[in-house]
Amino acid sequence: MRDTIDIPALVARREVYKSLEAPFYTSQDVLDLDIEVIFGNNWIFVGTEPELPEPGDCITVEIGPVSVLLLRGDDEEIRGFHNVCRHRGAKLVDQKSTTIGNIVCRYHGWTYNEDGELILAEHMGKDFKKNCHNLRTVHVRSIAGLIFICLAKDAPADIDLMAETMEKYIAPHDVKNTKVAFQSELIEEGNWKLTLENNRECYHCEGNHPELTVPLSEFGFGFSPDELDERRAEDVAQYERDVLENHARWTACGLPSSEEQHLANVTGFRTMRLPLMREGESHTVDTKVACKKLLGNFSRETTGAKLGGLSFWTHPNSWHHFMSDHIVTFSVLPLSPNRTLVRTTWLVHKDAVEGEDYDLDNLTKVWTHTNQQDADLVRLAQLGAEMSGYQPGPYSPYTEPHVESFAAWYIARLNDYFVKADTQKVAAE
Amino acid sequence: MRDTIDIPALVARREVYKSLEAPFYTSQDVLDLDIEVIFGNNWIFVGTEPELPEPGDCITVEIGPVSVLLLRGDDEEIRGFHNVCRHRGAKLVDQKSTTIGNIVCRYHGWTYNEDGELILAEHMGKDFKKNCHNLRTVHVRSIAGLIFICLAKDAPADIDLMAETMEKYIAPHDVKNTKVAFQSELIEEGNWKLTLENNRECYHCEGNHPELTVPLSEFGFGFSPDELDERRAEDVAQYERDVLENHARWTACGLPSSEEQHLANVTGFRTMRLPLMREGESHTVDTKVACKKLLGNFSRETTGAKLGGLSFWTHPNSWHHFMSDHIVTFSVLPLSPNRTLVRTTWLVHKDAVEGEDYDLDNLTKVWTHTNQQDADLVRLAQLGAEMSGYQPGPYSPYTEPHVESFAAWYIARLNDYFVKADTQKVAAE
Amino acid sequence: MRDTIDIPALVARREVYKSLEAPFYTSQDVLDLDIEVIFGNNWIFVGTEPELPEPGDCITVEIGPVSVLLLRGDDEEIRGFHNVCRHRGAKLVDQKSTTIGNIVCRYHGWTYNEDGELILAEHMGKDFKKNCHNLRTVHVRSIAGLIFICLAKDAPADIDLMAETMEKYIAPHDVKNTKVAFQSELIEEGNWKLTLENNRECYHCEGNHPELTVPLSEFGFGFSPDELDERRAEDVAQYERDVLENHARWTACGLPSSEEQHLANVTGFRTMRLPLMREGESHTVDTKVACKKLLGNFSRETTGAKLGGLSFWTHPNSWHHFMSDHIVTFSVLPLSPNRTLVRTTWLVHKDAVEGEDYDLDNLTKVWTHTNQQDADLVRLAQLGAEMSGYQPGPYSPYTEPHVESFAAWYIARLNDYFVKADTQKVAAE
Repeated sequence: MRDTIDIPALVARREVYKSLEAPFYTSQDVLDLDIEVIFGNNWIFVGTEPELPEPGDCITVEIGPVSVLLLRGDDEEIRGFHNVCRHRGAKLVDQKSTTIGNIVCRYHGWTYNEDGELILAEHMGKDFKKNCHNLRTVHVRSIAGLIFICLAKDAPADIDLMAETMEKYIAPHDVKNTKVAFQSELIEEGNWKLTLENNRECYHCEGNHPELTVPLSEFGFGFSPDELDERRAEDVAQYERDVLENHARWTACGLPSSEEQHLANVTGFRTMRLPLMREGESHTVDTKVACKKLLGNFSRETTGAKLGGLSFWTHPNSWHHFMSDHIVTFSVLPLSPNRTLVRTTWLVHKDAVEGEDYDLDNLTKVWTHTNQQDADLVRLAQLGAEMSGYQPGPYSPYTEPHVESFAAWYIARLNDYFVKADTQKVAAE
Repeated sequence: MRDTIDIPALVARREVYKSLEAPFYTSQDVLDLDIEVIFGNNWIFVGTEPELPEPGDCITVEIGPVSVLLLRGDDEEIRGFHNVCRHRGAKLVDQKSTTIGNIVCRYHGWTYNEDGELILAEHMGKDFKKNCHNLRTVHVRSIAGLIFICLAKDAPADIDLMAETMEKYIAPHDVKNTKVAFQSELIEEGNWKLTLENNRECYHCEGNHPELTVPLSEFGFGFSPDELDERRAEDVAQYERDVLENHARWTACGLPSSEEQHLANVTGFRTMRLPLMREGESHTVDTKVACKKLLGNFSRETTGAKLGGLSFWTHPNSWHHFMSDHIVTFSVLPLSPNRTLVRTTWLVHKDAVEGEDYDLDNLTKVWTHTNQQDADLVRLAQLGAEMSGYQPGPYSPYTEPHVESFAAWYIARLNDYFVKADTQKVAAE
Repeated sequence: MRDTIDIPALVARREVYKSLEAPFYTSQDVLDLDIEVIFGNNWIFVGTEPELPEPGDCITVEIGPVSVLLLRGDDEEIRGFHNVCRHRGAKLVDQKSTTIGNIVCRYHGWTYNEDGELILAEHMGKDFKKNCHNLRTVHVRSIAGLIFICLAKDAPADIDLMAETMEKYIAPHDVKNTKVAFQSELIEEGNWKLTLENNRECYHCEGNHPELTVPLSEFGFGFSPDELDERRAEDVAQYERDVLENHARWTACGLPSSEEQHLANVTGFRTMRLPLMREGESHTVDTKVACKKLLGNFSRETTGAKLGGLSFWTHPNSWHHFMSDHIVTFSVLPLSPNRTLVRTTWLVHKDAVEGEDYDLDNLTKVWTHTNQQDADLVRLAQLGAEMSGYQPGPYSPYTEPHVESFAAWYIARLNDYFVKADTQKVAAE
């Protein structure tokens, strides 16, 4: 019979450098806890500023049982609210994206201003206190145009380090002066942590991602030194010299490029800029730029287009790739124990014209195919995790250290939560 | 992690004139309890006599895990049975509506007569006692042609008051001499209580129901006196004089019209007859009768067609509107915490001919549109109730008193149940 | 509110010759237990050797949360493995049937040989022990070409009696020299035990299976002696003389025919060969052979085609019918409390040519129709079991003794399990 899952025990006995026990991927109780503890307390990447460029533009984001309304006000600031009326609880904005004046509930016409203050409520009588019925707010933080939110009362303060670091890396790509060229929503048939684990290694790339690997070096994502023969050892040395040369060149252009890694932080992240192979301009199937109009102040004359690929990974739910001509960002949100939403957004310069400066198919091809291939692998991993024959297996120390970083970070967050709950319990006694 | 829901505590702490706490709308445990306590012990409206006019006609009704077979016998009486064979439990009648002789199980041919008595069972041997295997019965009560059932062993006796009162109000509309012109089944994506709450107020009508409000006065369903200016105060006074004049005229025609309200009774109900605006004949988009052949003994020569709209609301699951030319009845049945069936039936005189006496689109337009609009509002309310940002909010004392009546009745029934369970527990100790 | 189901109590109070209490058909907890105890510890019929005739051929079978990979090796043996990679747990073979060399995981290329030994795993470093990461094995046993598996560590030994008995009965039909003419997968909307109960009686046949009953005697599957008049008593006597005469003739041809019944064994089974009526050649709508090329060494010249129908039923999940010209086998696998997979396979001589020796529609018609009719009855029985009005009802002592055998066997297995669990608990204290 189904046992009640003892999640604290599962957390306590997790073995390092091994995949998690099955309930972490399959149990509704764990998913509920993930939504409460992981997605409820940490900074979650939910979108980019170009998705709501003008005052009155709003988008909604669904995270488990929370719907958040993000609204750009007349002062250009983006504010976040729980998307639910304070009268009888109707959902306020039902679309993913729209433009509004005030926030008006369709049910009985209750109206809130851009600060979430209730400004109209008919038939409630003269004793009714409107100011006790304002919308509940959510923390919002934009880092160089990437929007993170936190649902907790007290948001982790160490986002300051991520912001300070990443503003420098991302600023040259000038996110605020981009536009959304395309956005896709893919539902992967697997647990959100399998989506993340899959993202945190490229051990599977060579066998599964023909488009993605075109401009990638096989040495960029780890390898076992025991398996190198003399010729390949020379290839590795050459690759490492290339990286150093490119870093020097990019730094001279004002582009920070060296690896920064803070994966054990509560607001854990990692970034680095790596060279692209062949033509070396962008992450496309022909390795040339997909958009003629380059981002920010980049130009063929000054910086050139060969600016490699700046990658930025965050715990628990995002990754981003910045090239000289376009940006791709990914937001991962759990839907159920075995269903996960991956929202992918392609950004180009706001003045670029489709059909003239860029071809949409060419721009999106690499990641449209790669996402689909990853979805299929995540599906197989989920099917396996759901089998009674599944047992946690070993991560490679050479190709899967960032899978381990993610798993360790996740386990640490749950552990913090249980320790805190225990402390509160003892204090109460 | 998901806490077990403490329903008695939720019942005990319910605040009056506030919407219910979220689990009442979202929890499977609450829905199971609703089906057991609310739908299992009370009189439930399930259909009308014209749906099974002849001996041998039967309909089936599904209420949670109960399927009820209603069969009109040769004596014209309607009897109710649990729709399940006493042999190996196959469902007996699988259709919503059909005509049968005896009740024959398709599996092994066991046969029951119209009293539910097992009259044939092959191969069971000579010691088998057929009379120990009769169908289990269900209480059935027709009030002026509206069929109510009760699944409990002991049905609430106060249905007598509702029957006595409503026979007088409804009799002139002569339900037994009507026929079903149309029946629709709409699945609303919300909890059944949100469907009921939505039905019990017209605060939302002006902003959402353009067809429904054509012949309705804005003063017929409550308003805040604080918001009336002098001109509108005069409109209200005029409306109130109109109502009194119409009541006098209708009463002279043998049509009881004044409000009767017994919403705190176990078999709680409310009724009143209100004038219709503009042409004032019926609840249609042009406010004229939809069916030339009037109901009962009504005629343009004697009573006239301007008989207003008699409304009849019952706890926990129905409402009905009776005009001079047609009747619309609504039965609400829960399917899951967030799915509810609304079955709507349009009745006209049994001798009316479609295309000649009435146009079906014209007859059904107001409520087909209104039902769809309400379904959309209920969906938004359910989405909101499922959000962790939801909190119970205040009902308007002027426009939502009957929402409060419904919520209070519902809470009272659950409270009665828990008190009785506690009493039985103490008695057993 | 939903009570926790006390399955040991339900097992302990089960009444003989009565259908089971509702939770046995409706509860997810019971289904989980069924998969663990019934499908996890017993010999389960999953397919036939002709489905994977050549080395490298493999099929996969899903039993609850277990996916089993069956692979025929170069030595012609069929081996069984848990179909899940020992690295990060991806499902290995995703198709129902394919041909492979080694078993290669698509995710990161880990490779296993036909014995399930890990022979390749890149980037794991020099200290990694491949031989600690072999595939987990599953017991496989072929009885005259019918493949049974057991997922338990220790498989029931009494399969030896079934093997010894059935090899003699089935061998003349020469399963290994057949081919799959057709295979269907039907999902019945009912609990797997309702599918089995339906299979274990023909009380329902006359009223529901017009095609199936063409060559069946109404006396072949039980009847109440109290309901026989003098004329029908003579019919019975004649039928019984026919059976004896046929058994004598078939035995002379080397075909064991008398009933063998071991339904109380852990590996419970029953077999018998019965005459077919009318033309008497095969179980088809015209009762003639569907395939001109007869099975094994049968021929019109030597044995003739009138070899009746050999039936073979096993606990908990299969039945099989062997005629002179074709074989039909059935494997039943639970999907959820109210969904069950019935996989039906039609086998003919491996050299028979479709369109020449047999017409596929004619070959499959009886059981395609019968399966669909049974699915509809199982659906009605499930709908009934889900109703609160359901109560266990009586089995006929004359027509439903094998339904009782199945139910009693099932209850005995659960009882064994609970007794063993209790014993282990006491021993541990």
